[in-house]
Amino acid sequence: MIRLYHCVSARSFRAVWALEELGLPYDLVMLPFPPRQHARAFLDINPLGTIPLLVHGETRMTESAAICQYLCTLVPGTPLELRRGDAEYGSFLNMLHFGEATLTFPQTLVLRYSRFEPEDRRQPSVAEDYAKWFLARLRTLEPRLTQESYLCAGRFTAADISVGYALMLADFIGLTPRFTPAVAAYWDRLREQRAYQRALDAEHAAAIAQGVSVVPAPLGGGR
Amino acid sequence: MIRLYHCVSARSFRAVWALEELGLPYDLVMLPFPPRQHARAFLDINPLGTIPLLVHGETRMTESAAICQYLCTLVPGTPLELRRGDAEYGSFLNMLHFGEATLTFPQTLVLRYSRFEPEDRRQPSVAEDYAKWFLARLRTLEPRLTQESYLCAGRFTAADISVGYALMLADFIGLTPRFTPAVAAYWDRLREQRAYQRALDAEHAAAIAQGVSVVPAPLGGGR
Repeated sequence: MIRLYHCVSARSFRAVWALEELGLPYDLVMLPFPPRQHARAFLDINPLGTIPLLVHGETRMTESAAICQYLCTLVPGTPLELRRGDAEYGSFLNMLHFGEATLTFPQTLVLRYSRFEPEDRRQPSVAEDYAKWFLARLRTLEPRLTQESYLCAGRFTAADISVGYALMLADFIGLTPRFTPAVAAYWDRLREQRAYQRALDAEHAAAIAQGVSVVPAPLGGGR
Repeated sequence: MIRLYHCVSARSFRAVWALEELGLPYDLVMLPFPPRQHARAFLDINPLGTIPLLVHGETRMTESAAICQYLCTLVPGTPLELRRGDAEYGSFLNMLHFGEATLTFPQTLVLRYSRFEPEDRRQPSVAEDYAKWFLARLRTLEPRLTQESYLCAGRFTAADISVGYALMLADFIGLTPRFTPAVAAYWDRLREQRAYQRALDAEHAAAIAQGVSVVPAPLGGGR
């Protein structure tokens, strides 16, 4: 059985989305955000204190984009992944990493220094430095998305989930008005994926059933 | 032919190290750091302006940890990778991502706000926030590295290259005195890899041959 530890709309949403796309059964454990503060017992399970944590047999994973790639291997033949030897395999791997390392991390700085820190520790200039940083990197997808509906191989793949979560986060932060046109249209397209909607429903239902706040993590979460 | 665009000791070092481990022939193009400022023509080749850029036939990649995974597929049977179905495949993918997304990005903030920005834009508190952030994440490797010599499968793999570069960067930043004992011993072990030494030699020789400064990127690079 797959068990996923998750906070509403946090980067672990990538794993929920992939699980829904793949149709895999899973146990979704909801935590208040940030778990390091509001669910101290979680540190015994994951000393990093971060979500996601995916547990599947002996496998334990904490990196959301890596989890997407791993989950694909559990469903042989799924169109959600590219495999070694596929012409765009390198591009697929690249976009999996790009979504997190290049497009998501800078936004966590925007959140930290414009919202999460106490007022006297906020740093508006750092928040703006990394909003710009994110938007500059995102803009490089514009030519590709002007030509293609998805990032790789002409179809929706886990690479779109990785980058898609970065766009979801940007939406929470209020950066969508600064998206270029093809990126904005791509984000509209991603939200039409039925599994994206199912993932939203699944986290909402699990939060209510488990007595956890439904306030999204990027908006502060809360108990 | 594989062509790699690289700056001395920048995160693209992961790709050089992987190429040397795999014994693949490659063309190493050295750029002054940061290329966005000192090698503007590079923006025509890579609009992101970042290194690495790997070009191999139609494949173009910019994420250093993804490049390591991709290069492994060019050498069937290499011990440098784990493959789907291997017991620790999930852990391998996780550590590939962890090395960059979780261990390297925070250090780029330390560099930016303690060294690279003009004095009036430096933010010592942000630099210290992310030095601590990095060290807290790094500490979670301590139990594993107390038991094992390498991160996965009891042998040196591309996951060690991904995390290894984060340690190399920490060394430039001056964070090694704050490493826990097993992590410090692991970093010593990694530097003994012959391919690590060959990668250092290769970048040094290429920088000199191409008239590029040999000052490491984390120390400011320069023309």
